[in-house]
Amino acid sequence: MTIVHSSASAAAALAKYDIKNATAIQVGDLYVFSGMTAIDLNTFEVSDGDIATQARVTLENFGLILADIGLSLDHVIKVNAHLTNVDDFSIWNEVFQDVFRPPYPCRTTVGAPLVVGQIEIEITATTEPRV
Amino acid sequence: MTIVHSSASAAAALAKYDIKNATAIQVGDLYVFSGMTAIDLNTFEVSDGDIATQARVTLENFGLILADIGLSLDHVIKVNAHLTNVDDFSIWNEVFQDVFRPPYPCRTTVGAPLVVGQIEIEITATTEPRV
Amino acid sequence: MTIVHSSASAAAALAKYDIKNATAIQVGDLYVFSGMTAIDLNTFEVSDGDIATQARVTLENFGLILADIGLSLDHVIKVNAHLTNVDDFSIWNEVFQDVFRPPYPCRTTVGAPLVVGQIEIEITATTEPRV
Repeated sequence: MTIVHSSASAAAALAKYDIKNATAIQVGDLYVFSGMTAIDLNTFEVSDGDIATQARVTLENFGLILADIGLSLDHVIKVNAHLTNVDDFSIWNEVFQDVFRPPYPCRTTVGAPLVVGQIEIEITATTEPRV
Repeated sequence: MTIVHSSASAAAALAKYDIKNATAIQVGDLYVFSGMTAIDLNTFEVSDGDIATQARVTLENFGLILADIGLSLDHVIKVNAHLTNVDDFSIWNEVFQDVFRPPYPCRTTVGAPLVVGQIEIEITATTEPRV
Repeated sequence: MTIVHSSASAAAALAKYDIKNATAIQVGDLYVFSGMTAIDLNTFEVSDGDIATQARVTLENFGLILADIGLSLDHVIKVNAHLTNVDDFSIWNEVFQDVFRPPYPCRTTVGAPLVVGQIEIEITATTEPRV
């Protein structure tokens, strides 16, 4: 097992919210991740951008964390997204298809009230890329 | 890793909604699946049946996808269900116990606003059957 | 694959609600679990305590189930929590940090209407402890 902690900038952002859970944990070929929302890694604030921006920032932050452990968004096999407004699905769907490269990962999208932000995303990754 | 794409009929239904995520991805002995709702594979429409029908159609569609890769509902280890109305739990519970054979898989059921339909289900399967 | 059934007391509580899904299923080094809420294992009733109590009872019940299979909360790698009121996040966060020992598992928290209770938790565990 390897426990992955956020990069220094992400850790500082999370400390602000008293978040201490692991960023990711590796077991065998699988990496499970904590859910994340769109935290700006420069200001440590939750993004006040629109849903498209928030979705993109969240996925790009996952990309940065994955890069820290030698992986990329190409290694993601599953994306679970929660939207505060399910009517934003088509916007989220566009961002998903723009940020990831085909063949796309699996995905589940549902609505949910969220602690902060308009989208909460969790991912599962593996050591072998999809592409 | 093996990426599983929907059967031709399911793919046509999903294309209608601009859905491009993988149907399932295999890593080692595990298969993770995208969440699905009750899409009628003949009409490509979301089922307008009641919640019992929608739950049954969704699970049966997973059964068809599993059959395509040489597995069955007996290989499912985990079911995550989201209901637009949690008061439908007992109906969903009946369908779950009717469609699956004991010993039953793990399951989590919560409420959620959904993009379409009244139930969204995702499953995790493995290469060894429960039964 | 090993299918884990609840202890006698938990099974009796679940039978009351006609719940027949597996408590946990092991595949390789991973254990997936069914979602649970705060069921009092003495009265078989859903806890009528406040959210802090419900969160603690639910995690402690997972601890009992894990102990039955030779594991502990130290073997949990992922926690998915659903709160009926996302404003309870800080209370849930405190209980999480009190019940688990660092390094903490991964976690995702979202809001959701629930079938019963104010918190529904599911966990993923592995054979190797975090600590």
